[in-house]
Amino acid sequence: MEVWWCSRGLLCRLPRAFSHVPRVHHHHEPSRRILASRLFQPVNLEERELGKEGQQSDLSCRSQRLMLQAGLIFPSSPGCYHYLPSTVRAMEKLVRLIDEEMHLIGGQKLNMPSLSAADLWKRSERWMSMGRELFRLKDRHDADYCLGPTHEEMVTELIASQGSLSYKQLPLLLYQITRKFRDEPKPRFGLLRGREFYMKDMYTFDVSEEAAQQTYQTVCQAYSRLFSRLGLGVVKVQADTGSIGGTQSHEFQLPADVGEDTLLTCLDCGFAANVETVPPGQKSCPSCHGTLSQTKGIEVGHTFYLGTKYSYIFSASFRSAHNKPIILDMGCFGLGVSRILAASIEVLSTEDGIRWPSLIAPYQVCIVPPKRGSKEEAATGLAEALYDKLTSSVPGLRGEVLLDDRTQLTIGKRLKDASKLGYPFVLVAGQRALEEPAHFEVCCQNSGQTLFLSEDGVIDFLRGQQAR
Amino acid sequence: MEVWWCSRGLLCRLPRAFSHVPRVHHHHEPSRRILASRLFQPVNLEERELGKEGQQSDLSCRSQRLMLQAGLIFPSSPGCYHYLPSTVRAMEKLVRLIDEEMHLIGGQKLNMPSLSAADLWKRSERWMSMGRELFRLKDRHDADYCLGPTHEEMVTELIASQGSLSYKQLPLLLYQITRKFRDEPKPRFGLLRGREFYMKDMYTFDVSEEAAQQTYQTVCQAYSRLFSRLGLGVVKVQADTGSIGGTQSHEFQLPADVGEDTLLTCLDCGFAANVETVPPGQKSCPSCHGTLSQTKGIEVGHTFYLGTKYSYIFSASFRSAHNKPIILDMGCFGLGVSRILAASIEVLSTEDGIRWPSLIAPYQVCIVPPKRGSKEEAATGLAEALYDKLTSSVPGLRGEVLLDDRTQLTIGKRLKDASKLGYPFVLVAGQRALEEPAHFEVCCQNSGQTLFLSEDGVIDFLRGQQAR
Repeated sequence: MEVWWCSRGLLCRLPRAFSHVPRVHHHHEPSRRILASRLFQPVNLEERELGKEGQQSDLSCRSQRLMLQAGLIFPSSPGCYHYLPSTVRAMEKLVRLIDEEMHLIGGQKLNMPSLSAADLWKRSERWMSMGRELFRLKDRHDADYCLGPTHEEMVTELIASQGSLSYKQLPLLLYQITRKFRDEPKPRFGLLRGREFYMKDMYTFDVSEEAAQQTYQTVCQAYSRLFSRLGLGVVKVQADTGSIGGTQSHEFQLPADVGEDTLLTCLDCGFAANVETVPPGQKSCPSCHGTLSQTKGIEVGHTFYLGTKYSYIFSASFRSAHNKPIILDMGCFGLGVSRILAASIEVLSTEDGIRWPSLIAPYQVCIVPPKRGSKEEAATGLAEALYDKLTSSVPGLRGEVLLDDRTQLTIGKRLKDASKLGYPFVLVAGQRALEEPAHFEVCCQNSGQTLFLSEDGVIDFLRGQQAR
Repeated sequence: MEVWWCSRGLLCRLPRAFSHVPRVHHHHEPSRRILASRLFQPVNLEERELGKEGQQSDLSCRSQRLMLQAGLIFPSSPGCYHYLPSTVRAMEKLVRLIDEEMHLIGGQKLNMPSLSAADLWKRSERWMSMGRELFRLKDRHDADYCLGPTHEEMVTELIASQGSLSYKQLPLLLYQITRKFRDEPKPRFGLLRGREFYMKDMYTFDVSEEAAQQTYQTVCQAYSRLFSRLGLGVVKVQADTGSIGGTQSHEFQLPADVGEDTLLTCLDCGFAANVETVPPGQKSCPSCHGTLSQTKGIEVGHTFYLGTKYSYIFSASFRSAHNKPIILDMGCFGLGVSRILAASIEVLSTEDGIRWPSLIAPYQVCIVPPKRGSKEEAATGLAEALYDKLTSSVPGLRGEVLLDDRTQLTIGKRLKDASKLGYPFVLVAGQRALEEPAHFEVCCQNSGQTLFLSEDGVIDFLRGQQAR
């Protein structure tokens, strides 16, 4: 074993501590092992205090309970959570996936302020209509602001103020992935319905309704691709336009019992709608008169065709080929970024073990070496060598492999923790690691499959998983 | 030339528009060219409206003027800016660099809420002492909150609530890179002093003052390394502890005339201090009695040794090897992320051209093909081929090369724009591209050097620049 196991006095602890990822002075030195014992995450999951929220009776949703227990989130105030390090890793991966999909359809990323002057909201009349959901505040000069829950007003004014947008620059697809604020009457279910959350919001600008409808389809397709890459069975349903407005809207709903929306779907023709959009009491499908079935869903995305609702108010126009100013045709498109994290856990997990979409799991692989003092202890070096080979020979696994160095615990105890935390792949150096050649147990937690593979076999297998 | 040059009616514009980066259905398809004409950035820099702020007489700072002119930022309300797409690219690169440096010293990234309950701030007595710099608001239940300008209270309470921190987990270095809020009495100079800005704030927890001082040095070294990688001549000076408190503090100052801090430095012994920390009227160096010289500086980082100031208030403790609870020893460490962007531009740029630290320039390379209809037009295909070879054969340039396809403009006009926007490398396919073999002009805007190189020469040269 290495420095971090030798017991030294407090004054010597600093170098040991930095063994998590130590100071290196040359940036191309291979990175060191990431150790479970050093992560800011509860060491003993069963004993974790769930905080004030843990005592509440409404801790009724699986993702919230699992995320609190696993040290992924911690409550700060109602509807506001600390995202602990593993959640930040997962969210950054999700953000990269969204960036990829938005980039593929020509999306350009910007970043708008959270503080939004009341004047903008008064012009759209949402200063009144949004009611108490808007967080409002005054600055030191007594000017009114709100904290942006969405940014239709702001982005439309930004475009209007450019003055010189040409038809050649359209369609223009602008998006941001930022923290949003909404004073929910009843924040609950952890990251599923918070007062502070991360949203990806895209705003599109087109020359005509027809062009805007094409853009609308393109963004919806990108959303479907994203959810399919995440392995989530999201359904696109017709939806109400709510406080955003516009004339057409769809929600992307992830079916789940805890969902707050009710969906009606027709197996015959594929019709799918939020119940809000269907006349009360309607039992048959409006398209084919087939039978409608009802499920609950978590809204993970919402799209709106806005037309000229905002562009008219703010005089956001473009110059046509004949140099005439024409009002822009708009759409807006939201994804609940932090909500997608929780919703994924909600639908993929078992009763007591988190399961992540592989692409956004905080770490891809956890290696479990034998217990200190056990008869398999000789395999410790093999586990460490496996760690080093994996991270050096599979590029996608650099920074993605965790060594569960808590070798004071049995393999069984650490496997139980690994099941709770949901690493897609757990590699165990147990009895068969002492065979010649050594074999490692490979637990594929998402598929439930268990394999025994040699070192080369493990590397080939995980390289194959990366290429998918 | 390709689809985006063929002139079609409005109905055909959608596919053309998406040629920026088109829809692809297979994710491993090589990405398409990034076109200057499609970027949400002013096409004609001289005609850009500077907005309300552009008319103000206090537009006295170079970085603010250049960033407005180049379409990097746009004002929303006083001290609040839209970060336009190129700025988002630069900031994301800067964030990755900071993440690298923090990871190397064992930092773990988390994300704390912006909404911060008044109670926390009352316990530290900062609810009063922060005065009007705190943005304050009430939620729908009339509970008091502020928008976090820093997070000492929040992170200390988070640690205190874990209950079970062991000495084995220390030092613990937690950081976040998030939007912060401060109701500045006089927001000005663009991103240099805003009311909404991005800050990286790290909080460290140690077993003793001695250990905390070692951690303090480690983080300061990481800051110095970061600024050196950015090529910024940042000076570490002794500083006042201000509203954060603690017993020791340093600022990382970037010397610049527009800076709001006054620094005293001694060339003899290296002493450096913010003038606030030196008795008024002191002319000689406190360490060696040498002569002090005075400069202005922009504060880009600030570090504090906090001791037990916050951990005592919130009872944040760890269990020692003898299982005794002991109050944690803390430090906190800030970097002004959005301020670093503007400060870099402030000190590196020329009077009318932005210069970026190479590592964070929004795009590394701009390729300028000949003007349409000019006698060099035959070299257009060579410029496009160069684009494709560069992006496919130099991995670091994937997504980093822009084609200035505004070929209705002369090369000279586009070179002038390129100089204003500050791409580190500009490649021109002019007269000498028609030679056999073709030669391209390579303008290294940061060094001022100009080279003429063959296609292979350009690729080798830029590959060499990446490896640095």
